Amino acid sequence: MSSRVLTAELPRHVGARVRVAGWVHRRRRLKSVTFVVVRDRSGTAQVVLRGAAPPEETVVEVHATVTANPRAPGGVELTSPELRTLGEAGQPPPFDLYRPAVTASLPTILDHAPVALRHPALKARFAAAAESVRGFRSTLDSLGFTEVHTPKIVASATESGANVFGIDYFGRPAYLAQSPQFFKQALVGVFERVYEVGPVFRAEPHDTARHLAQYTSLDVELGFISDHRDVMAVLREVLAGMAGEHIAVPAEIPEIHFAEALEFLGVPADEPDLAPAHERALSAWALREHGSEFLFVTGYPLAKRPFYTHPDPARPGYSNSFDLLFRGLELVTGGQRLHRHADYLAVLGDDAPRYADYLRAFAHGMPPHGGFAIGLERWTARLFGAANVREVTLFPRDLHRLTP
Amino acid sequence: MSSRVLTAELPRHVGARVRVAGWVHRRRRLKSVTFVVVRDRSGTAQVVLRGAAPPEETVVEVHATVTANPRAPGGVELTSPELRTLGEAGQPPPFDLYRPAVTASLPTILDHAPVALRHPALKARFAAAAESVRGFRSTLDSLGFTEVHTPKIVASATESGANVFGIDYFGRPAYLAQSPQFFKQALVGVFERVYEVGPVFRAEPHDTARHLAQYTSLDVELGFISDHRDVMAVLREVLAGMAGEHIAVPAEIPEIHFAEALEFLGVPADEPDLAPAHERALSAWALREHGSEFLFVTGYPLAKRPFYTHPDPARPGYSNSFDLLFRGLELVTGGQRLHRHADYLAVLGDDAPRYADYLRAFAHGMPPHGGFAIGLERWTARLFGAANVREVTLFPRDLHRLTP
Repeated sequence: MSSRVLTAELPRHVGARVRVAGWVHRRRRLKSVTFVVVRDRSGTAQVVLRGAAPPEETVVEVHATVTANPRAPGGVELTSPELRTLGEAGQPPPFDLYRPAVTASLPTILDHAPVALRHPALKARFAAAAESVRGFRSTLDSLGFTEVHTPKIVASATESGANVFGIDYFGRPAYLAQSPQFFKQALVGVFERVYEVGPVFRAEPHDTARHLAQYTSLDVELGFISDHRDVMAVLREVLAGMAGEHIAVPAEIPEIHFAEALEFLGVPADEPDLAPAHERALSAWALREHGSEFLFVTGYPLAKRPFYTHPDPARPGYSNSFDLLFRGLELVTGGQRLHRHADYLAVLGDDAPRYADYLRAFAHGMPPHGGFAIGLERWTARLFGAANVREVTLFPRDLHRLTP
Repeated sequence: MSSRVLTAELPRHVGARVRVAGWVHRRRRLKSVTFVVVRDRSGTAQVVLRGAAPPEETVVEVHATVTANPRAPGGVELTSPELRTLGEAGQPPPFDLYRPAVTASLPTILDHAPVALRHPALKARFAAAAESVRGFRSTLDSLGFTEVHTPKIVASATESGANVFGIDYFGRPAYLAQSPQFFKQALVGVFERVYEVGPVFRAEPHDTARHLAQYTSLDVELGFISDHRDVMAVLREVLAGMAGEHIAVPAEIPEIHFAEALEFLGVPADEPDLAPAHERALSAWALREHGSEFLFVTGYPLAKRPFYTHPDPARPGYSNSFDLLFRGLELVTGGQRLHRHADYLAVLGDDAPRYADYLRAFAHGMPPHGGFAIGLERWTARLFGAANVREVTLFPRDLHRLTP
């Protein structure tokens, strides 16, 4: 059997008899011929058929001659075809996959994801997400990071306590991990620089456009830093690797201290956090003043950050932490962590025994370190201007949705 | 501050004053000097210190002069050092990390993983695992595959029914996914070729050296195949990419049909599966006869494979499936799947409604397809001759172990 030729490769085979395979993307019946557009992973090709064509989404194999035709898409079409059905389409798709615009509502897309995602415009987002993750990893690989895989089942709901999923673990209670935070810190003690790409779980009780019960977290942690600025420098490289051709990442991402941000916003200086409207206003400022779609906000008040956050030694009450805003939304959270056992005991106080497993690494020598986490779906949503993070999740899980 | 130099780079800095940082790997006190071996992610360096050195595993920063010394490890040592402690080691490690051999038992290693894994011999396994995964991905990227991330929380315990972890999903029952099987098949309809690296969960009630409650599954699925042989060809490329310099993967991996294997083993022809001793005998034969540490066993009886397995059209009762044996153990399971909706309805019969979500994709045109899954920890265990899969898992989860 001749080997399959992808539709994108057809211009190199003009005059030859080839085998193409894919889905019937569209049929257009004219008086004497039917134009069948066949879709494969590389693109589409037009087949000129005499007689009837099978319905849209039928999987077909086509033996045909590649014929130059400047009016055909791609400059070639397939003539004298012999068409064979490989997989029947017993039911029509829930909406027309061949129309350039997606005409279905989000619930329809999500209910019928295995078919709906075949639409080229929807599929393209996931291909771009995969490319971003590839760029994330290759950047970190080149910087001496080691990829790790950590447990998603944990003994206690330690990090935030709220919004965890409970599981029955051989008759004992256990929880789904909300982040690999504790593991990645411990692993700085082993590998110095680690990253993980994996699912994290939040029993998010609110039905919002930004939250999912499971999302893909791109986690990074590195040792031997001076402060959070070394972490921000790595993040800048990572973003450039992820962005590829999609967007320009400035060589130096502008930054603003939390206290200055409040001042700029005209908000009282004792405000502990930024509201979404504040984030949008700061992002707009960064674009206007610095031409940057990215903005670091640094030095968040210690009181609003997790207990492992390193204080700013020069500015009491503030921390060596940052958020990265991207197009008006928080995309990344990160910072320097505490690394001395005594500092952990001091901040945790009576709670320290509950964190015994986590704290053990710090009793054995840990370097100054820090890191960050990027939500992959948020990144992709911002990249494509998707209003809802579910639009860039293959099979989202939320308060209401557990299938498909 | 001068930028940090990794110990592996020191030979390029002879004569210079440098800054090195890492862990005190070992102290050896002689009459007038102390030799301190400092360990960082690239290796170790010897520091010649006058006076006392901090205890092992203390994190230190050393400003010193790089001095050639043919008798020192690596040909250089650090002299006239100024040493500063970055992170105290308040407790000694549970065993000596500087001894070439690991002297601790497996339970000790696992109980103290954040410290124990710093031992260079243990750490090396995880670096090799990360390299293998990189090879896995780069091979598939070059073959036109798309990386995907699928839900780990599912609505029903569909694939095998047994050994699933139940979770409380906003008050409703749900389960941890035992594999991305159904998702990756559906996604063949979208991307043709997909892979996923992610956690899978088995509530394995037996305490064995081979089973974990969570492991890392390297999942692959591809469409437009002729039969399982096309899947085996991709698997061969993937293994070569994963193996790197560690092991030779033959250009053509030898194979034996299940029925011939039984005959060779002198086992009755109606035996439905291979016992571990059989797998070892077959592996030994492949090594003896073909010089190959890998062996495909093909055509397993349909009755012993999952319902979605494609039958062998030429041999009733057998299937288009395979296992890959590696050094005496099953490492990979794979094969061709059913792709016609009607075929699924026929094999599932009255059970079909329970699989409605899964079956939907098949009603909309699916190509002939197949795939496989590799257990990352099993792969690494075989590569390093580890008797227990826990030795190559950072923080294993099993019947008894939920921490650290």
